[in-house]
Amino acid sequence: MTLLAGGVGGARFALGLADAVGPESVTIVGNVGDDVELLGLHVSPDLDTCLYTLAGIVHPEQGWGVDGDTREALGVVGRLGGADWFILGDRDIGLHLVRTQRLRAGEPLSAVMADVAGRLGIGVRLLPATDDRLRTRVLTDDGELGFQEWFVGRRAAPAVRALRFAGTPGARPAPGVLEAIAEADHIVLAPSNPFISLDPILAVDGLQEAVRARRADVVAVSPLIGSRAVKGPLGEMLDTLGHERSPLGVARHLAPLAARFVLDESDAAHADAIRALGVEPVLAPALMRDQASRRALAEASLR
Amino acid sequence: MTLLAGGVGGARFALGLADAVGPESVTIVGNVGDDVELLGLHVSPDLDTCLYTLAGIVHPEQGWGVDGDTREALGVVGRLGGADWFILGDRDIGLHLVRTQRLRAGEPLSAVMADVAGRLGIGVRLLPATDDRLRTRVLTDDGELGFQEWFVGRRAAPAVRALRFAGTPGARPAPGVLEAIAEADHIVLAPSNPFISLDPILAVDGLQEAVRARRADVVAVSPLIGSRAVKGPLGEMLDTLGHERSPLGVARHLAPLAARFVLDESDAAHADAIRALGVEPVLAPALMRDQASRRALAEASLR
Repeated sequence: MTLLAGGVGGARFALGLADAVGPESVTIVGNVGDDVELLGLHVSPDLDTCLYTLAGIVHPEQGWGVDGDTREALGVVGRLGGADWFILGDRDIGLHLVRTQRLRAGEPLSAVMADVAGRLGIGVRLLPATDDRLRTRVLTDDGELGFQEWFVGRRAAPAVRALRFAGTPGARPAPGVLEAIAEADHIVLAPSNPFISLDPILAVDGLQEAVRARRADVVAVSPLIGSRAVKGPLGEMLDTLGHERSPLGVARHLAPLAARFVLDESDAAHADAIRALGVEPVLAPALMRDQASRRALAEASLR
Repeated sequence: MTLLAGGVGGARFALGLADAVGPESVTIVGNVGDDVELLGLHVSPDLDTCLYTLAGIVHPEQGWGVDGDTREALGVVGRLGGADWFILGDRDIGLHLVRTQRLRAGEPLSAVMADVAGRLGIGVRLLPATDDRLRTRVLTDDGELGFQEWFVGRRAAPAVRALRFAGTPGARPAPGVLEAIAEADHIVLAPSNPFISLDPILAVDGLQEAVRARRADVVAVSPLIGSRAVKGPLGEMLDTLGHERSPLGVARHLAPLAARFVLDESDAAHADAIRALGVEPVLAPALMRDQASRRALAEASLR
């Protein structure tokens, strides 16, 4: 079972998937387009959200960061005039320090994350899409911004006109990524924002082709319920990027990759139009309220 | 008033001196020989001990680190297999992050420390002896070790046979250091370990000559009371480096630099031998128990 995932929705879905099929059967190919250097630290927000979620230590309401983490270091950073616009908890900084030092010493990100995931006791295999530098750049009405600069720094306010993935082409798949796609029984595109979570994964050399080659076994899960994103800026992005703001808009974007598309039962009205794209609609309750609903959604996506 | 200082004794003395003459009259030339890169962070233990002490936020018993600081980040570092042998508190890490990032961006250490000291509201001027890389190396029976590797990592256990200061000659005085020595009314060698706190300062190009040129106005304060260091490994180092383990042993080492030597009243028996070195002994209560005794010792050193 291979899951392409980024962000909070992807991590929560991964938890349901791990519950449904056993963590040792799941490989996550995670987004690194939102990675950022902050205060000299290499921060991997999407990978860490997966890590913390699967380790059972994520902050349950916000969906990212370590539950109960403190912000003592960041408080001093702010007091000393350093950049404190991106929240880094103290325990979080412990991970960033270890990762950054190992990356500087020449270890690939995939090796560091595998080791960290093992130490945190995560049964799931968590692979960054690439060990190379790949960064999502957001072209807005206010100019081009780094992803976190836009998302956190500007609260995702400037309208998004286009996205590009600096480092592509040329970013190579991390070891095991192509195999995980070629050999999986199912490939799931998580209910993550397709533009900023899935597309940067698919922008890695050969990734998109590898997924297309498995299209018959690929299922996408809608990150929208009705015309609303459960979390994050997807609704507005569909508008400004010229897509329909509905599960159908997302299904159109993913149709070249996925033979099936899971959407919420409340969105049944879109089913025929999705089928007309050559994509089989699968109706299921898509809101992940708790572990039971996450697991049920994962099971529906594999049916 | 210019104070050459390193470590806890130097920082506590600085507090007394600032109290005695007003913080704006005090310049500290601080030791950077014990600086260390840990987890990719530039840590300056002696400068930070001065900083935290003068800001009134130092841990009062241990004499270093921030009072009430937590160790969340370091706990995660240890859990993830990173180096956690050197204690870094979370607030402490906030300072290290800001400093490291600014150093990497090309700012000199002196500029960073001046800014940080200002933000923490320290009236005293705190100068690193040099902005260049200077590192104390400890030659022991177990081989050559980095200073912190020996002091913290090995708990100062391996006997010290010699010290060397990597980066010297060639380490240039930080801006303002030579002026602070040339123009001060008094120059005080703090009650710091002469071998690992003062010598690395004096190893900076031109520093020793500058202090010698002011010898008539230089006073040294004994870091020993009787044959015992108040804190730290000085007693053993005097033995293994071939010096007498007494204030006289220290006075001999500093005699080329200082015209006066403050020693504890209990050490009056050494006064004549010190005078015979061409150094005027000054008897005073040298144990810094509290702010009143720190101030009294500072005042005695200026008399």
